[in-house]
Amino acid sequence: MSDCVFCRIVAGTAPATKVHEDDTLCAFLDIRPIARGHTLVVPKTHAAELDELDPELGAHLFRAGHRLALAMRRGALAADGANLVLNDGRAAFQTVPHIHLHVIPRKHGDRLAFAKGFLLRRPHDPVGTAAAITEGLAALDRPNLDSEGTAS
Amino acid sequence: MSDCVFCRIVAGTAPATKVHEDDTLCAFLDIRPIARGHTLVVPKTHAAELDELDPELGAHLFRAGHRLALAMRRGALAADGANLVLNDGRAAFQTVPHIHLHVIPRKHGDRLAFAKGFLLRRPHDPVGTAAAITEGLAALDRPNLDSEGTAS
Repeated sequence: MSDCVFCRIVAGTAPATKVHEDDTLCAFLDIRPIARGHTLVVPKTHAAELDELDPELGAHLFRAGHRLALAMRRGALAADGANLVLNDGRAAFQTVPHIHLHVIPRKHGDRLAFAKGFLLRRPHDPVGTAAAITEGLAALDRPNLDSEGTAS
Repeated sequence: MSDCVFCRIVAGTAPATKVHEDDTLCAFLDIRPIARGHTLVVPKTHAAELDELDPELGAHLFRAGHRLALAMRRGALAADGANLVLNDGRAAFQTVPHIHLHVIPRKHGDRLAFAKGFLLRRPHDPVGTAAAITEGLAALDRPNLDSEGTAS
């Protein structure tokens, strides 16, 4: 069994609330969220830091993060924005040595709640939160709800 | 002339110290850096927020950010890590409404300097700083200096 908790989550041997997965990456709720919906996107192949990560897989992580940020706006989280953050290396506050992109939904006027969340990092209802995100992802696929408001 | 300062930088009608450029994106030093080498990567086509940004261009921004983070380690900045941050929307502290990826080099033990930089955001020697980054980018292309330390 891997020493790496994110590798164990990818393998399904450690618990996590996954919101998205494909052949090369996996997205799940941060167990210590700064805000409700705080999600981590990780490559399925272990890479501790950016210098071990295939650049195309890195680009794909961001592609997934971009889509999650849109889903957080579109779905029931009703976010007004998001912070996408990748901390590369311990010097940059990376705590788990398996590359992960944070996607943190934001709302207008949430600065105080965000600061509090940063300190407390309390979990929120994971099932409802994940449903709000997956619903947002599904909504992105519905042509009558695209960003131009026109069918495509 | 565009109202958008980043569009003007892309067009060369506003000053900036560029460190990298290709057909679709441009990277330049933040004029108010949190740390020496703090760089912004922007798409050349105006997009205010992620919902206006082509996902492939977003992935490419990250590809460039990844490479800049490696260059900051490899070159004279001698970084030990980097924060890659994209703030999507005013709710997420986005200040200039043209998508930009921050790449902020970090050093072991720089927490106090980082906190100070976050508050003061004082410019550093831009010419020397840009040279340190472009030298790092060039070093990434030299096969005898690859991450495995073997020729490839």
